[in-house]
Formats: sequence, C-alpha cells, structure tokens
Amino acid sequence: MKLWQNTNPDTKSSIEEMVEQFTIGQDTIWDLYLAEADIKGSIAHTSMLHEIGLLTTEELKEAHEGLQAILKTVYDKTFVIEDGVEDVHSQVELLLTQMKGEVGKKIHAGRSRNDQSLLDIKLFIKAELKQIVEKTENVFNSLIDLSEKHKNDLLPGYTHFQLAMPSSFGLWFGAYAESLSDDLELILAAYAMANKNPLGSGAGYGSSFPLNRSFTTLLLNFESMNHNVVYAQMTRGKIEKTTAMALSGIASTLTKFSMDVCLYMNQNFGFISFPKELTTGSSIMPHKKNPDIFELIRAKCNRIQSLPNELTLLTNNLPSGYHRDMQLTKECLFPAIIILKECLDMLQVMLENTSVKQNILSDEKYLNLFTVEAVNELVLSGIPFREAYKIVSKQVEENQFVYNSKSINHTHEGSIGNLQNDKIKKEFIKKKKRMI
Amino acid sequence: MKLWQNTNPDTKSSIEEMVEQFTIGQDTIWDLYLAEADIKGSIAHTSMLHEIGLLTTEELKEAHEGLQAILKTVYDKTFVIEDGVEDVHSQVELLLTQMKGEVGKKIHAGRSRNDQSLLDIKLFIKAELKQIVEKTENVFNSLIDLSEKHKNDLLPGYTHFQLAMPSSFGLWFGAYAESLSDDLELILAAYAMANKNPLGSGAGYGSSFPLNRSFTTLLLNFESMNHNVVYAQMTRGKIEKTTAMALSGIASTLTKFSMDVCLYMNQNFGFISFPKELTTGSSIMPHKKNPDIFELIRAKCNRIQSLPNELTLLTNNLPSGYHRDMQLTKECLFPAIIILKECLDMLQVMLENTSVKQNILSDEKYLNLFTVEAVNELVLSGIPFREAYKIVSKQVEENQFVYNSKSINHTHEGSIGNLQNDKIKKEFIKKKKRMI
Amino acid sequence: MKLWQNTNPDTKSSIEEMVEQFTIGQDTIWDLYLAEADIKGSIAHTSMLHEIGLLTTEELKEAHEGLQAILKTVYDKTFVIEDGVEDVHSQVELLLTQMKGEVGKKIHAGRSRNDQSLLDIKLFIKAELKQIVEKTENVFNSLIDLSEKHKNDLLPGYTHFQLAMPSSFGLWFGAYAESLSDDLELILAAYAMANKNPLGSGAGYGSSFPLNRSFTTLLLNFESMNHNVVYAQMTRGKIEKTTAMALSGIASTLTKFSMDVCLYMNQNFGFISFPKELTTGSSIMPHKKNPDIFELIRAKCNRIQSLPNELTLLTNNLPSGYHRDMQLTKECLFPAIIILKECLDMLQVMLENTSVKQNILSDEKYLNLFTVEAVNELVLSGIPFREAYKIVSKQVEENQFVYNSKSINHTHEGSIGNLQNDKIKKEFIKKKKRMI
Amino acid sequence: MKLWQNTNPDTKSSIEEMVEQFTIGQDTIWDLYLAEADIKGSIAHTSMLHEIGLLTTEELKEAHEGLQAILKTVYDKTFVIEDGVEDVHSQVELLLTQMKGEVGKKIHAGRSRNDQSLLDIKLFIKAELKQIVEKTENVFNSLIDLSEKHKNDLLPGYTHFQLAMPSSFGLWFGAYAESLSDDLELILAAYAMANKNPLGSGAGYGSSFPLNRSFTTLLLNFESMNHNVVYAQMTRGKIEKTTAMALSGIASTLTKFSMDVCLYMNQNFGFISFPKELTTGSSIMPHKKNPDIFELIRAKCNRIQSLPNELTLLTNNLPSGYHRDMQLTKECLFPAIIILKECLDMLQVMLENTSVKQNILSDEKYLNLFTVEAVNELVLSGIPFREAYKIVSKQVEENQFVYNSKSINHTHEGSIGNLQNDKIKKEFIKKKKRMI
Repeated sequence: MKLWQNTNPDTKSSIEEMVEQFTIGQDTIWDLYLAEADIKGSIAHTSMLHEIGLLTTEELKEAHEGLQAILKTVYDKTFVIEDGVEDVHSQVELLLTQMKGEVGKKIHAGRSRNDQSLLDIKLFIKAELKQIVEKTENVFNSLIDLSEKHKNDLLPGYTHFQLAMPSSFGLWFGAYAESLSDDLELILAAYAMANKNPLGSGAGYGSSFPLNRSFTTLLLNFESMNHNVVYAQMTRGKIEKTTAMALSGIASTLTKFSMDVCLYMNQNFGFISFPKELTTGSSIMPHKKNPDIFELIRAKCNRIQSLPNELTLLTNNLPSGYHRDMQLTKECLFPAIIILKECLDMLQVMLENTSVKQNILSDEKYLNLFTVEAVNELVLSGIPFREAYKIVSKQVEENQFVYNSKSINHTHEGSIGNLQNDKIKKEFIKKKKRMI
Repeated sequence: MKLWQNTNPDTKSSIEEMVEQFTIGQDTIWDLYLAEADIKGSIAHTSMLHEIGLLTTEELKEAHEGLQAILKTVYDKTFVIEDGVEDVHSQVELLLTQMKGEVGKKIHAGRSRNDQSLLDIKLFIKAELKQIVEKTENVFNSLIDLSEKHKNDLLPGYTHFQLAMPSSFGLWFGAYAESLSDDLELILAAYAMANKNPLGSGAGYGSSFPLNRSFTTLLLNFESMNHNVVYAQMTRGKIEKTTAMALSGIASTLTKFSMDVCLYMNQNFGFISFPKELTTGSSIMPHKKNPDIFELIRAKCNRIQSLPNELTLLTNNLPSGYHRDMQLTKECLFPAIIILKECLDMLQVMLENTSVKQNILSDEKYLNLFTVEAVNELVLSGIPFREAYKIVSKQVEENQFVYNSKSINHTHEGSIGNLQNDKIKKEFIKKKKRMI
Repeated sequence: MKLWQNTNPDTKSSIEEMVEQFTIGQDTIWDLYLAEADIKGSIAHTSMLHEIGLLTTEELKEAHEGLQAILKTVYDKTFVIEDGVEDVHSQVELLLTQMKGEVGKKIHAGRSRNDQSLLDIKLFIKAELKQIVEKTENVFNSLIDLSEKHKNDLLPGYTHFQLAMPSSFGLWFGAYAESLSDDLELILAAYAMANKNPLGSGAGYGSSFPLNRSFTTLLLNFESMNHNVVYAQMTRGKIEKTTAMALSGIASTLTKFSMDVCLYMNQNFGFISFPKELTTGSSIMPHKKNPDIFELIRAKCNRIQSLPNELTLLTNNLPSGYHRDMQLTKECLFPAIIILKECLDMLQVMLENTSVKQNILSDEKYLNLFTVEAVNELVLSGIPFREAYKIVSKQVEENQFVYNSKSINHTHEGSIGNLQNDKIKKEFIKKKKRMI
Repeated sequence: MKLWQNTNPDTKSSIEEMVEQFTIGQDTIWDLYLAEADIKGSIAHTSMLHEIGLLTTEELKEAHEGLQAILKTVYDKTFVIEDGVEDVHSQVELLLTQMKGEVGKKIHAGRSRNDQSLLDIKLFIKAELKQIVEKTENVFNSLIDLSEKHKNDLLPGYTHFQLAMPSSFGLWFGAYAESLSDDLELILAAYAMANKNPLGSGAGYGSSFPLNRSFTTLLLNFESMNHNVVYAQMTRGKIEKTTAMALSGIASTLTKFSMDVCLYMNQNFGFISFPKELTTGSSIMPHKKNPDIFELIRAKCNRIQSLPNELTLLTNNLPSGYHRDMQLTKECLFPAIIILKECLDMLQVMLENTSVKQNILSDEKYLNLFTVEAVNELVLSGIPFREAYKIVSKQVEENQFVYNSKSINHTHEGSIGNLQNDKIKKEFIKKKKRMI
C-alpha cells in the first residue's frame, strides 16, 4: 500500500500486483535495518517542525510518544513492515497515524521520502562503520599479540613466490595488523562523508517551509550538513559507493591474509595449522583437513571487493536528481556490511586458535635465504655492494654457498628484531578516536 | 641491461631480446615520471648511509654532487632511460657510477629496487594529488562563481527524469562545487596512506644494516613511516588502488556534471549553451553543434572509474611478498592521473564559457513544478499535509491546477534562496590545508 | 551435519556451530535450485555404476525407486535441506539411505561432491538459459510487433544527444529486437560450454574406478563431455562467469532501452507514455507519474552487468584444483538469473501497454533533422557531397534553412521505409534452434 | 583539421588547439590500425555508389586507383595521419582528393564517419580474432605435446590447496589445452557478432540514397548485415565489449596457468623449471631465479580481464544514438588485443623450454594422495563406499596408513591413463573452422 496513492488496494489487478512486487522488491527486508534511524530521524524532524511553528507543543508530545513506542518495537524486534506497505517510512507514518491520529498526517511536512532514505542510510552507515572498526580492532589486537608472541619464530620470506630472505611470524602477523590500521583511512573518509546531515533537502530541491536544518544537524549528532540541497540528493549512491570502498579496503587485507594462510597450511609449506574442528574434511578423501574457513573469508571478501564497481555501474551516467535505481543500493551494500562483520568475527576465532611451526629455517632447503646476509657482511667489511653481490652470486652458482649462523640480527625500525608494534597500535587508536 | 646480471649483453639471443622487451614493457616511459622522486630518494638514502657509517663524508659529497647533476637533467628534460637499461633505478645508479665511479656501486647497500619503487611511487602520488587538488580548486571556484552569478535563474528540477520542483542554476552549479569538496575526503585518505615512508623495507624483509628509517622519514618529509617492513611492501598496489579510488571520486562528479550538460544542451531542453568553437560539427549533418568535449570528459572519467577495479584484479589473491605483477600498476595509474588533470583543465575552460538560458520556467509546460508550493501553502494555512496533498492532486488530475506566482521563496539553509556557498568554500579550504 | 564427519553432532560447541553457519552459508537456499539436477545426476550415475558392475540390478532398482520418490518431493515443493545438513548432495544421499538402506551408501562411489556440483550447475544453467531465451523471444516478438505497428510514426533521431536526422518508432523498436537477437550469440556460447558432461571427474583428478563417462553423457543428454578431468574441474567458476556474460548481454540491451524510455517519457520529449497504473507517484509531488518500472529494470540489469566482474574477482588468481571459494558462485549467479527473468516478464507487460505520440516531427523545433535530406537532394542533382554540405550549412547558419516535405523516402535495407523485420525474425529463430 | 569545418586552421586560438588535442586524443595512433579496413571499406562503398548510379564508371576507376595507391602506403608502412587531421577517415578522403580531385569529394555520399568507424572496427576485429586463434592454436598444440610427452609423470593433485589425489603432468598440460578449446566459444560469439555489415547505417538513421547494402555485404565478405540501421549504430561499443569478453576468456586461462607455474616453480614445490635466461634475477639477492615472465603474463591477462567491465562503464546508461564516448573504445580494446597476442607468443616460447621434475610422488610426504585409491580398492572388494571411507580415515588418523604401489591405474575417459587428447584436438579444429 502506498500512502500517496488514491486507488483502492482491494481491487488491484494481477498486473498491479506484479508491478507492486517488482517495485517494492527487497525493501521490506532491508528497510528493517533502517527502522531505528528512520524513527530517530522523525523525532528530530518533528522537534524541528515544532521549533518553526508547524507543530504545536501538544502535537509534538503526541508525535514523540508515538514514535518512542514504535522505536521500542524495533528494539524488541517486533517491528515489521506489513504486507503491502511500501517501505519503512510509510510503515512508521502509518503506525503513528493509527496510534495518534491527525498528527501522524502532519509529520511529513517539509520532507520527502528521498531525504528520509538519505538520512536513514547515513545514520545507519555511521553506526555500522563504528561496529566494523570495533571488530577490526579485535582482529588487530589478536594480530599484534601473535606478532609479539612469535617474534622470534623465523619464516622464509618470499618474493616472486621464490625464496628470498628470512622473515618472521612476528613480521608476518604484525604486517597485517598495520595493514588494518592503514585501512582505517578509507573508513574515516566514508565516515566523514556520512557525517553530514541531508535532512531538509526534500525531494532534492529543498522546501518552501522555513526548515531549520542546523537544528536537526545538532539533534542528530551530525558533524555538519550537506549544505546544497541538490548536492544532498547527489550523495545518494555516492555515500554507499564510498562506504563500499572503505569495506573493500579491509576486505582486501583479509583476502591477502587468507591467501597466505591457505598457502602456509599446504603440506609443501606446513607453516601453520589449526585444530581439526576448525578445518573441513572431504566426502571422498579421508585424510583431508581443508582450510575452508579461510577460503570462504577470501571468497566473501572478494565479493565485497567487487562492490564499489557494482555500485558505480548502478549509479553511473545518471543525470542529477533522484532515480529509482537508487533503491537497489541497499540490497548491494547492506549484505556486504553484515558479511564483513561475520568475516572479522570468524577471523578473530581462527587467530585465537593458530599454531605456528617452530624452527622452520633449520631445514637446509632454506639456506639461500641467507645470501643477502652474506653480501651485507662483505659490505660491512668494506667491499662495495655490487662487488659483494657478485662474489656471493658465484658461490651460489657453484653450489659453494654456506652460511653458518641461522640467527638473524636485524635491528632497524620495523625489522625482525624491532617490530614497532607499540607505534602501530598507537596509530590505530589515534585514528579510531576520530570517529566520534 | 640489468645491473644485477652477469651475462654479456652483446651476445643476447633473439629469445633473450623478446624476454627483455616483454619484461621491461612500458617501464622506460612511465619510470620517467618517477625520476625526480627516485633521485631525491637516493639523496636521502645516501645521507642516511653516511649517518650510520656506511659512506664516508667524502663519498657522500661525491654521491650528492652526482645525484644533483642527474636531477638537473630531469628538470631540463634531458634525462632518459637508455636503451637496454631496465628501469629508472638502474639508470640513475649507472649514471652515478659513470660520473663518480666506486661510490655509485655503494649506494644500493641497504635497499632494494622494491623499496625504491615504493618510495618513488609514494612521493610521486603525493605530488600529483596536490596538483589534482589545485586543479579541482580551480573548477570548484568557477562553479561557486557561476552559482552566485545565476542564483536567481530558475531551472526545472527533475526526479525520475520527470518534472518535479523548481530548482535553480545557483543550486545546480553549487551542488557540483560541494560534490568536489566532499570528494576531497577520498583524496585525503589516499594522501594519508601515501604519506608514510617505506624506505628501509628492502625487498620486503628489511635489512641487516642498522638503517635509520626515522632519518629518511624526516629528510623526505613524510608524516610517518610504514613501520613493519613486510607491510611496507604490501602497500605496493594498495596505494595505487587507493589513489585510484580517490581519482574516481572526482571523476564520478565530473561524469555526472557532463551527463547533465549533455542533456541540458539537447534541443528539447536548451538550458545551456557554449560558443561554436567549443562544440563540434558532423561530417554529414550541417546543423550540428555537438557537446563532444563533455562527452569525452564523461568517457575519460568513466575509464578512470574503472581503474580501482582494474587494480584490484591486478593485485588480488596474491600472497604477501613482492610479485612482478606490480610493475603494471604504473601503466594503469599514471595515465589516469594525467587524464584527470586534463579533464579538470578542459572543464575549467568550458565553465568559463557557459551561457545560461533565462526565464526558463515562464514556459507553461513547467507549471506542474509548482504543485508542492501549492501543497505547502495549504499546510501553512492549517490543513494536514496528507489532506493538502490530496486536494492539489485532484486539481492536477482534473487539469484545474493553476499557480500564479512563478517566483520562489525558499529560505532554509542550502535552498534556492540561501545557497551557503561561503560555508561550502570554507570547508573546501579547510580540507585542502590538511594536505601539507 | 556432514556425511563425511565422524564427530557427534550433539556435542557441538558454539564455535563449531559458528563454523558450520559460516561454511554452509546460503547453500540451503540456493542448493534447492539444484535439487532436480542433482537427483537426475544420481539416477544417471547409478545407472552407470550398474553398467560397470558396481551396483547389482537389484541395487539399481532400489536406488532408482528411492531417487524417483525424492524427485517427486522436488516437483511438489516439499523437498527441503534439513537443518544441519550441509548441501543438496548430502540431503539426497541421506534421504536415500533412510529409505533404502545400504544402497544409499554405495552411490557415492566414483564421484565427489565436486563433480556433482559441477554437473548440477551445468544442467541447471542449460535449463535456465532455455527459459531466458523463451522470455527473450516474447519480448522480441512484442518489439517486432510494435515496430511494424509504428513503422510510419516518425521520431527525432539524436546523435551526441543532439537533433540529428529523422528516425521512426519502427526503427527504434526494431533496433532493440535485433539487439536481442544478437545477444543470443553469447547465450549460445554459454550454452555450448554448459553442454559438456563433467561427471566422472571426481574431485578433479578422476577415479580408479572404470567409469563409463560416455554412458552418463548420453543419459544426461549432453552434447559432449569435458574430457580432461582436471579441466572438468576448472569449468567450475568458468561456466558461471560465461553465463554471467551471456546474461549481461541481454541486460545491456534492456538497460539501454530503459534509458531511452525514461528519456522519452520526460516531459521535454513526451514521445511515449504508459497507463497511470504502470507508473508511480510521489509522496510529496501530487502531479507525478514516474517511470519506476523502467528505472528498476535499468538498475537490476546494471547489477547483472556487474556480475561477470564479480565472478572474475571471486575466481581469479586461484591455482588449479577445487577451492571452497567456488561455493559462492551460486549466490552470485542464481539471483541474477531469477531477476533477469523477472525483468523480461515485466518489460513484456510494459511493451503491451506502450502508447506512442503521433506527428512528433510536425513541430517546427525539429526542422533541422532534415538538413541531410536537403544535402542529399543536392547531391542527386549532381553537386559533389562536400559542396552540397557547405551550401546547406550556410543556410542553417543564416537561419535560411527550410524543408517543406516532412515525409521521408528511405528505401534501402534496414532504413525507415524498409525495416527488414522478417529477416531479423528469421535469424532469431535460427539461433534459438541451436539450443536443443 | 576537420573536413567538415569552415574555420581557417591558421587562426586557431590556443583554446581551439586545446580543444582539438582533447578531442582528437589518441586517434592518430589507434586509427592507424584501422587504415587497411577503412580503405577496403571505401573501395566497396564506391563500388556500390557506382552500382546505384552515384558514381560514373570513370569516377569509380579514378577512386579505386587512388584508394589502391593509398592502401599500398599502408602495406609499406608509410601511411600516416597528418598533424591536425582528425582521423583515418578524414586522412584517406583528403589524400584521395589531393590525388584525384573532385571524385574524392563524392565518396562520402551515403555514409557517415559513424558507419565507417563501425565498419573498420568490425573488419579489424574479424582479422584480429583470426590471428588470436592462430596463436592460441600454437599454444594449444604445445600443451597437447607436453601432455603426451609427460603423460606418465605423476604430480600431486591439490584441492583447497591441500594434498588430494594423484594427478599427472599429462592431465595438467592437457587441461589447459582443453580450456583454450572451450575459450573458443566466446571467440566464436564475438566473431559472429563482428561478421555483420554495418555499412549503410550512416549516422545511425540510414540514408535517403538508395544504397545497396547487400552488395557491400558481399564485397566485404560479411556473413550477413546489421539490418536495422539504428541497431547497426548500437553495435558500437557492444562489439568491442563482446570482443573484450572473448579476449578475457583466453586471458583467464593464461592467468590460471601462470599462477600454477609460479607455484610449481616455488622451491617448496619444485615441480617445473626453466632455463636461467628465461628467469630473472634480483638486484640484492644473488640466488634468485624469478618467474617474472609468468608473473607478467598473469598481470597482463588480469588487466585484459578488467576490460569488459571498463567498456561497460564507458558505454553504459547512454541512450541510443552515437555518442563521442565511443571514440575511447579503441584505446581500451586495441592495446588489449596486442598484449594478448604478445602473451600467447611469450607463453609459446616458455612452453617449449619447460622442464618437468621426475618421480615427484616417490617422496613419502605425498603418501596421503593415495587414500582414495585405498578406499576404492575396499569398495571393489565389496565394502560400501561410506564404510570403506571410515576404515581408511581411521588408518590416517592413527598414522597407520600405508600404500605400497605408487603406480596409478586410471582408465576412464579423461583420466590419467586415458587423456583423450585426440578428441580435444579434434574439437579445437572443428571450432576453428567455423571462423571462415
């Protein structure tokens, strides 16, 4: 049912039903995620209508009572979008009118569902980005802990997939922690974009009512507003796309880590392992302990990485002004948010159950990892780098290369012996604080 | 020629030549863009080698003399990557060794081409992002000027491509200005990521030399460093992708504006026009004045918008550690930077030559734009919004809708009568200042 | 529950439950779409096991009875994947074992869930592509009918969004019909790839059983088989991606048509219209009749066009051999198939309700459409083309251009007066016949 | 210089030059690839103009003489697009007019640069697809040869990156051969779409001249024509996108193979190797033999795989009718064609130099590969599959699993002992034949 429609819903033809189903689509699912924001938006909007004299104090009280009651149903999970109701905005207005009569019909003054959607999505994104940062911090902390715990456990470092130089589990875990910290930059960008109040932009061209947009900006805890109302409308699709970029930054780090883990769990490497119950068997091969969880983190995060492009395709080459195409941004973005949170939780569990192989580099097959150490020792004894390189090169070629000490003495900032995890942690916390 | 190779280049087989061509690829073109950064990086690196006792004061003086001389050839455009030389790093080291002998062979101590590439790319991206913000500011200022100039020129506002409500050229131009301001968030995110020193990460696993990374961080004017050396290497590909996201933010705004312009130049709209010399004719239709420039801005910016995905595909599902795949990020990203700058310059010219049609809304066909005004007047007279909506709806249906005043009195923040361009400008400048 | 697992499901820890939920994901939804194919595959596989002596005639009879009974539950929609059961393959085997005992445990000999999934997906894709071609043909026929009906109704033809030359509704509708016919090429490519039997590839490395793969190829009505078992496994992900390309071909045509329609419904054009019940109103603007259905077709089809890239990201840079990542191809591809079919149905309804404006070109504003006609007339009178062009060009510039006849006499193949719809139809039918 | 322009080129302002540079872009580079097709198109078009009486026999002779002379300059590589000339079409017409006077001005009658571009691109794509299939066949044949040569060399088969079952180099090389054969389906789809004559569609709305399009279809060796002229124009962008899909099919196979090779060259696997001159060293690690060529094939092919999406973004959401955006399809597609051909050539060289490790599976660490063999032996002795699975499973868990014979007896179609390379080859040849 559409609040703006005059036709009698009881006499809908089958074509009208088909149209209704086609146009409502998945809104009754995804709009539920917006219910809290929508009602809070209406509370602020009605306060503002009162402030500019469009609602009486009595009406405001009625409206707020009703809206708070509806909000309670959201919190106790009994709120639903009724069959035939188009979206969350209509459902809330309908409920309010059923509860409080006339005042329900007044609250839509000075706004449009377009700016309600925008508002709801921005409030929702702000809350979700905070949650994602919380969960990212959990994973970050686990990685830092593992880095510290295994800082003396050496690991072959590869370049071009080929044996390169000694690395360590301390470096490896710490690297992914720092990666997540860097990923916060995109999160902060999306958060800053979401942190601007669109309410008051109406259908994208403002209103002849003397709306007080600063007032709702304050009430809704936005840092600022999308000033220009035409631009406010343009942020639809754009905020979703920017958020998708932010999610895909973290997803990219998780993908890479999962790829490493799948490789390191392979028997030809055998660097890390997980308890049997966190791996998966095969329907035909009795010996299998597959890293399905990491394969699925990788896969789910790869889907998330496709999202910015999907949203670009959805919104691109459309002239300014709202288009119904925008409705679908919800069914693109919202599942990705949910999935990324699940991946972070799952990864957290896996990290807590990671076992690391000891003394990997004592195996002779990793000898060549130490050629650069040998070159550098020659350099420190005074031989120019390019000469030292040639000497060791010849030893390797003639199978004469030996390197006795398998301990590593790297001391510079960020190297095996000096991981700088405290600094990495400090930077993470500093960025997180910017999200208030 | 490869500095690390022992083979005699004079006896290369045709297959070796094919391999060389295939592997060097376009590096001799794109590496030129990195020459300045590469030499400055070597100046800082040698200062640091001296600081930790790996170069004598005399050697440092020699090295700096040579590097400054090479830098001069970059500035006067005579620097080239010689035929057969693999990349800019090899070319600089080769030249230095030719000029200064032994010391040239010493400067590669404690670093790898991997961290040189990373360093060069980050310095280059920092400089280019600044330039892009400069050019974006030019376009931004033109848009604000046009917005102010045409703040009283009304325009039909469309939603769903359908006549909706009155808008104005003031709103329209201003919206795109604010859009560019919001686009700076992603630029700032990319800039923050680029503003971390990777030098000292070597091939991605650090060095046994006691490198002083804080020292080069200071010399090269980075805000901080990529601490963990494994993570420093991981930023390869990631910084390019994040920069591509930042470019595609601005590109998206330019695309949308171009789409609007192409529409508004269409004879069925006829809202804006450009001098004949800024439009293009047809080989068969003598009457044509085509908006090719805007079509090409749109097209070029759409290519740029495909770039984050291209870089994701290029770098995705690769385990940690350098892979040669990364070489191609240059030929993806660098042309996009160049093209975006050209588009901004071209758009700037076009904006300065824009003519706007007057009195568009006096045409009767735009009457229905005013139905919301009529509804709101009823609301202000005390009728609940949903009732007022129904009254006007009936008038429209029965072709009885009239609206006499064609002037608009919108007063709230960001509306036709209150554009807030000063606030939008202040926010732009504030963000730009964060890029120092 | 996993058939290959020894652990007691009653003692699952909360972590094990979390793992189960994370790994099963949406399989219980999407695997239902594969149930019919899975059971038919088992019928063929057991026939083959009997053929090579691994099942007795009695066992085969038992197995077929059980499988037919289960298939019946699929047809009457009572088949479900029970809570805790991993996938459709496990569910079918479980049911069969419950019904028929020992023989149920024998049917997995010589195959793996990997090749079952592959088989099910290929059978499913074949069936779905046929359905899509059916629905495409309906739309195609409507377009051809509209083209014939409106072959004399002229329309402005635009290039660069600018008035160009006369076109017609006959040309316009017919163009989209021919576009759909060309789109069948990609459908045929996907169909040909899907039309190869993967069964017998096991986990991707074949089997030590003397499987008769030609026998199941025949029973399952495949044109040929994926011969090499390692390649058979590689088609996982690839067939989904190729199918996505085929879907996106049709989606691209629908997107473009919808864009045209949204433009032509705009009041500045006003070329076509639809009954009120097939348009949508606004919550604040009482005059609105929005083309939401076409905006949603465009949007849904744009999401579909993002799918090949999503599947590329999901499957790319993985070495050969099955990876669990592949599980997610179902939740990418299957909804897209469903949505494309809905879009085709919805478009069909819209086409049947399309009204076309008459005599559009009699409006003076479209005069310049006829300049090429004027040039051509001069050419036919003997003036070289480039001269004629200049003459008319000058007339236009000096506002002297007139053109009296507003009728068009285009006669060549595919032009306004000679639409060739019969040939276009013949080609469509010919391609469709290749899908048997 | 533009043939359709009246302005004096000598008095161009700097803005006009900027506009010219911005709009001509890279056309002077990429249009050279179209020169042959463009001239052949003009030869056919003039023959047709003569056929319908718009050129005299004498004029036709003149025109053909001139065009043949220009074509000769293309073959001997002296043809250039002169500075200031817009595109290949203008250059050819200009040269012809310089050589033959008046007739040069007549040949543009009945066509537009739009349909010339379309024609040129389709002829070019047809020729290039044939070349790509030639080169693909070379690689295919090398793979089949390697498969046959190494059919008895066993290899571990992995699923989930974990040891799974025995495979062989025969299977592995053969799988990629069959993959390339399947990739021909998309090539054939693109070829079929390109094999339709667009000439005669003019600017996208046909012509008032009585063009004989069947005549040029025949002369230019097209299988059929794009009948509807509006659709003919729509194929611009679409044929490039479809071709990009076809290229990306082959690219995907090359990417996967390269990923496998990079993995197998890793020292933890060590399955295959290449001569030193086909690997690459490091600037700091003297022991390195990096697989750069395969990393670059992977990377270049990953860029190619991003192309369909790039072309979708470039062309999407544009209404029907030509837009200048289409100009950029050339600079997207043409380099990809060149690069794919280079990758195929390079891969061919690498395959000819591949060394394979013998007796890999004799290493005890690969023992578990044989568990399925053990299970199957139990099944053949009468134990139901699920029971046999549990027995071997227990052996593995208790470290009791042994398997003596390390030979493999797989006999079914497509398995280790029965590669079916002859059938795979037959299918490749059959598909290739469809491209005439």
